Amino acid sequence: MHGDFLSTAGLSRDELESLIESALRFKSGTDQSKPLAAKSVALVFFNPSLRTRASMQIGVYELGGNAVVLEPGGTSWTLEHREGAVMDGDKTEHVAEFVRVLGRYGVAIGVRTFAALKNWDEERTDPILNAFAKYSDVPIINLESAMHHPCQAMADMMTVREKLGSGRKRVLLTWAWHPKPLPMAVPNSFALAAAQMGHDLLIAQPKGYELDDELISETRKHAGAAGGSVTVLNDIDEAFDGAEVVYAKSWGSRKFYGATEKDIAERAQYRSQWIVDEGKMARTNSAIFMHCLPVRRNVIVTDGVIDSPSSVVIDEAENRLHVQKAILKELIH
Amino acid sequence: MHGDFLSTAGLSRDELESLIESALRFKSGTDQSKPLAAKSVALVFFNPSLRTRASMQIGVYELGGNAVVLEPGGTSWTLEHREGAVMDGDKTEHVAEFVRVLGRYGVAIGVRTFAALKNWDEERTDPILNAFAKYSDVPIINLESAMHHPCQAMADMMTVREKLGSGRKRVLLTWAWHPKPLPMAVPNSFALAAAQMGHDLLIAQPKGYELDDELISETRKHAGAAGGSVTVLNDIDEAFDGAEVVYAKSWGSRKFYGATEKDIAERAQYRSQWIVDEGKMARTNSAIFMHCLPVRRNVIVTDGVIDSPSSVVIDEAENRLHVQKAILKELIH
Amino acid sequence: MHGDFLSTAGLSRDELESLIESALRFKSGTDQSKPLAAKSVALVFFNPSLRTRASMQIGVYELGGNAVVLEPGGTSWTLEHREGAVMDGDKTEHVAEFVRVLGRYGVAIGVRTFAALKNWDEERTDPILNAFAKYSDVPIINLESAMHHPCQAMADMMTVREKLGSGRKRVLLTWAWHPKPLPMAVPNSFALAAAQMGHDLLIAQPKGYELDDELISETRKHAGAAGGSVTVLNDIDEAFDGAEVVYAKSWGSRKFYGATEKDIAERAQYRSQWIVDEGKMARTNSAIFMHCLPVRRNVIVTDGVIDSPSSVVIDEAENRLHVQKAILKELIH
Repeated sequence: MHGDFLSTAGLSRDELESLIESALRFKSGTDQSKPLAAKSVALVFFNPSLRTRASMQIGVYELGGNAVVLEPGGTSWTLEHREGAVMDGDKTEHVAEFVRVLGRYGVAIGVRTFAALKNWDEERTDPILNAFAKYSDVPIINLESAMHHPCQAMADMMTVREKLGSGRKRVLLTWAWHPKPLPMAVPNSFALAAAQMGHDLLIAQPKGYELDDELISETRKHAGAAGGSVTVLNDIDEAFDGAEVVYAKSWGSRKFYGATEKDIAERAQYRSQWIVDEGKMARTNSAIFMHCLPVRRNVIVTDGVIDSPSSVVIDEAENRLHVQKAILKELIH
Repeated sequence: MHGDFLSTAGLSRDELESLIESALRFKSGTDQSKPLAAKSVALVFFNPSLRTRASMQIGVYELGGNAVVLEPGGTSWTLEHREGAVMDGDKTEHVAEFVRVLGRYGVAIGVRTFAALKNWDEERTDPILNAFAKYSDVPIINLESAMHHPCQAMADMMTVREKLGSGRKRVLLTWAWHPKPLPMAVPNSFALAAAQMGHDLLIAQPKGYELDDELISETRKHAGAAGGSVTVLNDIDEAFDGAEVVYAKSWGSRKFYGATEKDIAERAQYRSQWIVDEGKMARTNSAIFMHCLPVRRNVIVTDGVIDSPSSVVIDEAENRLHVQKAILKELIH
Repeated sequence: MHGDFLSTAGLSRDELESLIESALRFKSGTDQSKPLAAKSVALVFFNPSLRTRASMQIGVYELGGNAVVLEPGGTSWTLEHREGAVMDGDKTEHVAEFVRVLGRYGVAIGVRTFAALKNWDEERTDPILNAFAKYSDVPIINLESAMHHPCQAMADMMTVREKLGSGRKRVLLTWAWHPKPLPMAVPNSFALAAAQMGHDLLIAQPKGYELDDELISETRKHAGAAGGSVTVLNDIDEAFDGAEVVYAKSWGSRKFYGATEKDIAERAQYRSQWIVDEGKMARTNSAIFMHCLPVRRNVIVTDGVIDSPSSVVIDEAENRLHVQKAILKELIH
């Protein structure tokens, strides 16, 4: 691995396995190395965060380093990312200067920049994240962009391996109702990484809530190469049959992208049907329950499921710490 | 001491004395131990803070550790604390997940969550703080809740001992006018701890500004057991006679709890009469002047008093650092 | 150097040179000293920041210490600075307590407090910064006040020396159009420090955009003493002839101070004429291009100039880190 960590797409199966093994060594305490000693890492948050913020700060500290958190538009300046922009509007600083300066102070930059949920054609290209990568002289780590959340996906794959061992599993990514449309970065990255790891991936979602076509096409290619498969279903009940992993997540409709009220009206019909509950979990092959968190209890998943022994959401969140240390170690040496 | 640090109520006199002695060793430099080496502590702020934020971050650092600050609703997600809630409103994450995840990243969680000043019957039970304690696998430290501010009370008791020596003192907790109703956590915890330490506690406040009945009853029980006493007065001038400690604090009326405008109208009559000024201090037995800060000058206390040699407010604030290091050391080992 | 670091005005030429040499030792890695080991520094931000926030936090860390960031009115309390104030309004804490408490927790306090752009006669006296200095028992470091930005000016002087060597240079400080009036701290401190270092300083600005009279008069005095000169011009093109340093910066008009809309109307006529572009740079003596950042591209300076080899803005920003370490080392020993 070299350069940036923007998505898992550019990594080989061996590189993914190697990151998971490195993360397991950090988790077990076998790896006590301090590759960030006397070094600083900038963490740039355009959006709120708990797990990412805490686990990155602590990960950097445990690797011997110093994390500095910046919030553009909050504690820091608003940022322009478009090349050639005439900056006479409300943006105060260009990403070009922002990242080049941070690259002089630290050895890497993490950035969280959610989808604005306004214009899919633009946002699917991850313009802000890619501006960071374009102008930066130090590695950029994607802490969730419009399109990808690769640190989450790596923690997810590590958790599947920890709980169920190596090898091909029947993995269900299932859409859930949520009071408002959410970004697609988590399901995108989960689907992609699951395919890269050779799992049999089922994506269950109502019609109209399809993930990005190109992302699905790339996911199918990876699945083929890794010996797994990708199936898209619209039947929530059937989807749970025989699943070994149930990964719940809500996301918005591309059809109604930028039209929040229409999406909210459309999704209302799915509320009671698409929640992960005890009945659905009973149809699985003793599946573990996963979610990236934060999760809305009794909306995405019932208390009965998330509080059951099959729920691994806290382990999954813990693994964010270990896997991000592995990523940082790999990027900075 | 074990488990959480939510109030001083569960600690014995010996445990309180032992914390103060530990704090004095940190202050003198005798104790240079680093019980938090390579460990992280999460500090969760629902409300603004200066002393608590700075002294906790620095205390953790001086103990060898790493503090991570999170602000629910600001830099982090909004939090639901009610068991069984159907989370289809504006709260994004449940305390159950929030604290369990933080417990995987760090060894303790500090939390500041002020009274909302809306519903006394609910807030007096400290629902958010207690949800943190209920779900957490690591110690919870109360950095001021609706009902208690035990770190402040410990710094207060340490300051009394430093300035006046061990033994029973005549301690006045006196209400003061403030432009708006404030929470009762500081007077509650001060009263409780002063009683636990065996002091003779006088509480002076206008009629209608009584502290919580159960808190006062518990305070009287502790005073009895420790050989001290609790007296409640409504006469501000008499209250100062012979006092060795004057502790000023404004708080809201339970009668007008949630009815801010009514409390403001009610309290207007007390403004000039209830300020701590040179005349009142002259009636004391050379009392020290204390306040938890922030303090509104020439509203709660005159410049003449707070800038006089009898004012110990800066020492009191400094002691927050030392006593919190003692608490952290006791909780984490 | 002793006491506070509020502006460069009180420092001798030798002291300025000595700071630059210390900064160069930090930059080259020759100086690895940790004068802040086990010590904490409070950084107080009333305003947003990137470079200052990141470089101060990292500088403190690299010197062995711990930085604590506070935001009055945000994560911390609102602050009153007026002596004798009756605090019955919206300010929660007085600077007197705020800085004295921080002085017990840490060894220095940095503070950023921009001009409010309302009342020049008041703001030019830097009332908030001076209240910090007045009440503090530990050194105060000015991280940009209404009147001065001395850390920036020191980084600027270091950059000129690095790029062009020691000795007297022809230095142009040139006003630029910006969609709204900005504070004058950066041009003030740059002009002052350039004069103190003995450069030939040209200040180019439209009529009505003169810097503070007393500041200019002080700058002329320093220039005289150091063997340099100060010239004020209103002709933007002529100003560039033979310049070795071009330092661009926008600022507001004192004439329209507090009258934003009038300043915006007045300045409209200068937009196209006062931008730093390739044509103007061609008139210089191969000048380097400098700006404190953040900079609005294609408004203050064209992409062509800021992306050219003559642009040293990223080096200039990097030097903030090194020079601030030199300042901290000098203040804390």
